[in-house]
Amino acid sequence: MTLSTTRRASAPQILDRCRELVRPAMVEAVGRLHPWHAEAAAFSLGWRGTDGEPGPGSQGKGVRQALAVLGARAAGGDAAEAVPGAVAVELIHTFSLIHDDIMDGDETRRRRPALWKAYGTGPAVLAGDALFALAVSTLAEAPGPGGPAAVRHLARALGDLVRGQAQDLLFESRPWSGPGAVLPHEYRSMATHKTGSLLGCAAALGAELAGAPEAVVEALELAGRHVGVAFQAVDDLLGIWGDPQVTGKPVHSDLRRLKKTYPVLAALSAGHPAARRLDALLSSAVPLDDLAAQRAADLIEEAGGRAAAVAEAHEHLAAARLCLDRVPLAEDAREELLTLVPYLVDRTG
Amino acid sequence: MTLSTTRRASAPQILDRCRELVRPAMVEAVGRLHPWHAEAAAFSLGWRGTDGEPGPGSQGKGVRQALAVLGARAAGGDAAEAVPGAVAVELIHTFSLIHDDIMDGDETRRRRPALWKAYGTGPAVLAGDALFALAVSTLAEAPGPGGPAAVRHLARALGDLVRGQAQDLLFESRPWSGPGAVLPHEYRSMATHKTGSLLGCAAALGAELAGAPEAVVEALELAGRHVGVAFQAVDDLLGIWGDPQVTGKPVHSDLRRLKKTYPVLAALSAGHPAARRLDALLSSAVPLDDLAAQRAADLIEEAGGRAAAVAEAHEHLAAARLCLDRVPLAEDAREELLTLVPYLVDRTG
Repeated sequence: MTLSTTRRASAPQILDRCRELVRPAMVEAVGRLHPWHAEAAAFSLGWRGTDGEPGPGSQGKGVRQALAVLGARAAGGDAAEAVPGAVAVELIHTFSLIHDDIMDGDETRRRRPALWKAYGTGPAVLAGDALFALAVSTLAEAPGPGGPAAVRHLARALGDLVRGQAQDLLFESRPWSGPGAVLPHEYRSMATHKTGSLLGCAAALGAELAGAPEAVVEALELAGRHVGVAFQAVDDLLGIWGDPQVTGKPVHSDLRRLKKTYPVLAALSAGHPAARRLDALLSSAVPLDDLAAQRAADLIEEAGGRAAAVAEAHEHLAAARLCLDRVPLAEDAREELLTLVPYLVDRTG
Repeated sequence: MTLSTTRRASAPQILDRCRELVRPAMVEAVGRLHPWHAEAAAFSLGWRGTDGEPGPGSQGKGVRQALAVLGARAAGGDAAEAVPGAVAVELIHTFSLIHDDIMDGDETRRRRPALWKAYGTGPAVLAGDALFALAVSTLAEAPGPGGPAAVRHLARALGDLVRGQAQDLLFESRPWSGPGAVLPHEYRSMATHKTGSLLGCAAALGAELAGAPEAVVEALELAGRHVGVAFQAVDDLLGIWGDPQVTGKPVHSDLRRLKKTYPVLAALSAGHPAARRLDALLSSAVPLDDLAAQRAADLIEEAGGRAAAVAEAHEHLAAARLCLDRVPLAEDAREELLTLVPYLVDRTG
């Protein structure tokens, strides 16, 4: 063990290190795109402003690329082996954000205009497609014997991702209560597909590219899926009780938009008297104003929805830890995974 | 040689036979989608009306799946080996039509509403993504040693496809004449990417899945690309001079929309006196009315644009034939390719 690894890295340091490792390959991949798509990619990745102007915007945390890198190292491989997988999952994540913003009509992303607001819907659809294609291509061209299995993993994750987005979109038209109401377990299925699949895929891809045995790949994949569900529960908590200064979104943003998220669904299914009052408030079906959103947040908390979402996050965090415990992994990488994972769940923005 | 193959099949018979061969796998693949996406896919593939109502709409010709099947047979393989490739290319074609209609604002497709008109833009973006993911997944899971190479082929074609669509969209904002005008060779590059890549990929995938040597795969890919450029030139001719009864589009439809297609660009670059009058007419930049569109069509013809597009189609058809001649292929499949390819170019709708 060298001196540099004896002091345990913090989660932000781990994320930074992985991002730096992957960055040259990411730049190279984006450079293979049509210039128009390269510009849209640079904007979406936070490397550039609109019209290619320099000055980076806020970048994503790079969770998926970090999971890929740590997955490879945990499987006893070299961090570099994970790079095509890390590039692929970050590109897929970026593609999905671009298309999701179109579908959800979200006008901002990381405190800047969403790509479709900045460049138009058609170009944003196409730029998303270009990143999707680039991700598949990057992984298909990965050297080493793990490539084909890695492509199969990515393909399955892509299928799950679009399934989760369909589930989420269909929740919108379902009632808050009574027959047809969205139940918490359906929400968990959606989150497993929409958020868990790509995080699970990221960790699995790294291991797969490093030639890990199937049991290790599966354990990392399952751990990543649990992290995804926990991550989504935290996202939902922040969408209601997050600090606008940190999240960059208005206070109670998910409630104002009447978004069906875990804390609300858990509250409504709790059988608590506050649940009926919450149901009446939400079923009025007009976007909530300041006062109504505050009242809804209070009722969700009273009915136990906030506590249920916190419990959901912690249960899936614990499940992820168990997955990492049940297979032999390189100790330093396992430690870094165990540093990173709770950080993602304890985040405030 | 059995009795059934001694009588040469016609092009429609070849297309029908290939469609029937691929159909069960296509149905199975679509059945793996989220029900919402399966419905959108069935609508887009012409199997169903909106809201899942039975009664099929007009289906595509299935050119891509036929090329995949014939590619496998030409390489000495079994038609069945091509099926995962045939499914993948048809799914990618369907995805690209769905997204292209959104980008181009085209409201109808095969005499029915475009998917985005029938289901909304967001759901259509997602349904396209779902078909894209399904295509990659179908090919990634293909049995046999040719799978990984086939995935690499598809990935490259996808990259070319989005590049071609970007080129095409950017043509819109360029002038008809002077510096910055779109030149015929740029149009050919766009068509090679946008139309040629997937047709080339289709033929190559079939051969690749059948275990063909690289020279055969390459020859079939190049042949398919040439067919694509020829196909696009014919599409452009039909977009101006096609019979609305057959094409299902209004007369002069591409001219009314001021679309930069090969006959127009060839006419404008011809140095003929009619080209200047055409330029003035088109540069007025208002969508053309009946009279102006007729006048533009006449000027294009006078300046030689129509003849140039016909020549373009025939040159690329001849080039495709040369590609098929320069490698050893199974004779019956080569004959069917040589029946199918001119049929695609001689079509009237």
